[in-house]
Amino acid sequence: MIKVPVGAPKSYDICIGGGLLSQCGGIIRQALGGEKAVIVTDDIVYKLYGEKVKTAFEKAGYLTSFFVFENGEGSKSIDTYNALLKELVRENLTRSDLVAALGGGVVGDLAGFAAGTYLRGVKFAQIPTTLLAMVDSSVGGKTAVNLESGKNQVGVFYQPDIVICDYDTLSTLREENFRDGVAEMIKHAVIKDAELFDALKEPLMPQIESLITRNVTIKRDIVAQDERDFGVRQALNFGHTVGHGVERLSDYAVTHGSAVAIGMAIESRGEVRGQIIELLKQYNLPTETPYTADELTQAAFSDKKRSGGKITLIIVDKIGEFHLESFTLTELGKFILLNHI
Amino acid sequence: MIKVPVGAPKSYDICIGGGLLSQCGGIIRQALGGEKAVIVTDDIVYKLYGEKVKTAFEKAGYLTSFFVFENGEGSKSIDTYNALLKELVRENLTRSDLVAALGGGVVGDLAGFAAGTYLRGVKFAQIPTTLLAMVDSSVGGKTAVNLESGKNQVGVFYQPDIVICDYDTLSTLREENFRDGVAEMIKHAVIKDAELFDALKEPLMPQIESLITRNVTIKRDIVAQDERDFGVRQALNFGHTVGHGVERLSDYAVTHGSAVAIGMAIESRGEVRGQIIELLKQYNLPTETPYTADELTQAAFSDKKRSGGKITLIIVDKIGEFHLESFTLTELGKFILLNHI
Repeated sequence: MIKVPVGAPKSYDICIGGGLLSQCGGIIRQALGGEKAVIVTDDIVYKLYGEKVKTAFEKAGYLTSFFVFENGEGSKSIDTYNALLKELVRENLTRSDLVAALGGGVVGDLAGFAAGTYLRGVKFAQIPTTLLAMVDSSVGGKTAVNLESGKNQVGVFYQPDIVICDYDTLSTLREENFRDGVAEMIKHAVIKDAELFDALKEPLMPQIESLITRNVTIKRDIVAQDERDFGVRQALNFGHTVGHGVERLSDYAVTHGSAVAIGMAIESRGEVRGQIIELLKQYNLPTETPYTADELTQAAFSDKKRSGGKITLIIVDKIGEFHLESFTLTELGKFILLNHI
Repeated sequence: MIKVPVGAPKSYDICIGGGLLSQCGGIIRQALGGEKAVIVTDDIVYKLYGEKVKTAFEKAGYLTSFFVFENGEGSKSIDTYNALLKELVRENLTRSDLVAALGGGVVGDLAGFAAGTYLRGVKFAQIPTTLLAMVDSSVGGKTAVNLESGKNQVGVFYQPDIVICDYDTLSTLREENFRDGVAEMIKHAVIKDAELFDALKEPLMPQIESLITRNVTIKRDIVAQDERDFGVRQALNFGHTVGHGVERLSDYAVTHGSAVAIGMAIESRGEVRGQIIELLKQYNLPTETPYTADELTQAAFSDKKRSGGKITLIIVDKIGEFHLESFTLTELGKFILLNHI
């Protein structure tokens, strides 16, 4: 097992290894203490790993219960959040007890929002079971649920107390979900790590431990400088400005990873653009979209990250290096058109 | 106008003065910027000060709208929170825009929870109009709404970006609400400031500016050491362990200030106890309760602040000095019985 220590804005460990699910209760108990644990998961993950994780928690001495909801983005709602709060009340969880998120990004975002707000914050463990959650959403403390009016419109920044990545769980992941994680790994490589970019050209599973470790380290270091996403953390939005637009325009029929892949292709230029597109294609990630430059521009400007009249894009100068640039609506339209296929 | 600067966990100013409501828009705009402001208030405060504050905000250039709910604790609910979120969406508020809380503790707690969670946090101004909110709830970043199962069970720690205390608003406050604020001022004096304790024996309004200033300074300094209420911030719970029990047992017929007054009388001992009771009586604050020691003990132990099997009480050694002591259920029962009249 590899431990990546996180120092800021809060101190905790990201544990990466094979077979960790069957030891997770003990690892968590040692790091966090607490008497009770409510494990939040979806029905698909519960069927796969619920029993194993329950046993691990009970072996470690936790009074353990589950909150299981239906798999899918539709569950990431205020309604599920309210139901989860009721469950935490029913279990009489105290501030020194534990909420654990077992699953992908939807589970982590929802459980984290509840953990961060119930009693103004209880202990919180992330146990990601998708590649996307391991290398991206479980690290950094962004939690949220969707409103009818848009995705992630309500949430908090709430750092976990521990993250446990058991990459054995990736074996049960569907190809398209695995690919979503690869897109974010490519993003990390493009903005911060040329060596990682090269490593991603080789088969992934033989080097998965080192890949996850490098990715969480990149994300950790960026988040440490800017927890609340006002400055350098915006680098993580590379590909996301156009990507979110694609997701929205497709009514979320295009997955997050595919949308980010398209976004990276459109938001980059020059030689770098060719390199990125080549690697994306290696993983069958899309690099084109049927939406017009105008549609993408409008969608980007209605995104919540817009602050005032301008939008900030991450412009990659060469693999591993970037700078930030501000665009007005008109400028962004021209920029997108330039790269639009 | 007096400015009390707050340095931790976040930098902002607490402004204290007469006539500040008519200037509040300008003061806020200068400190925070932003284009739009949603002012959250209740129907009673809206009738008294809505027009004045609206004018001040518009004069400062804010696109201003109001979210007005029915006065009272019953509005501090997930339902009102959801309605407020919808209003923020409808106004298309961005992260650089502003939510302002105009009113007492209920308004501040509810508006703060929405400001702290909508888009994971937008700018937030507190404009308290009750003494209790000025000297206590508007400072320190505790926000929350109630669940059916209990008070303040969901919320976040979210520090305001500015607090504006216009003590002219105290003239419209009902006697019993004013008294609630006095109880918290007495609490601050008892745990931290013997001079303030003496000052509270004199007429309050002629020295109100200095009194508010001293109180927010005490609270600021305690919160700076322990934002999330795991250590020294517990000092602010003096009188609140038994006090919350009294509130709960009375189904909140006893106001917060009165309950804390009773709590302070029961949680103190020796010479100090006599001094506290004398000052409480000067303000017609209650110092006795019909509930039995056993009822109070049970209620205290079902409080959310209980962590594991023990409860921590603030024991005042002399006016201005205290220490913390842990009690089991049995020990607390004996301790309460000792002081129970």
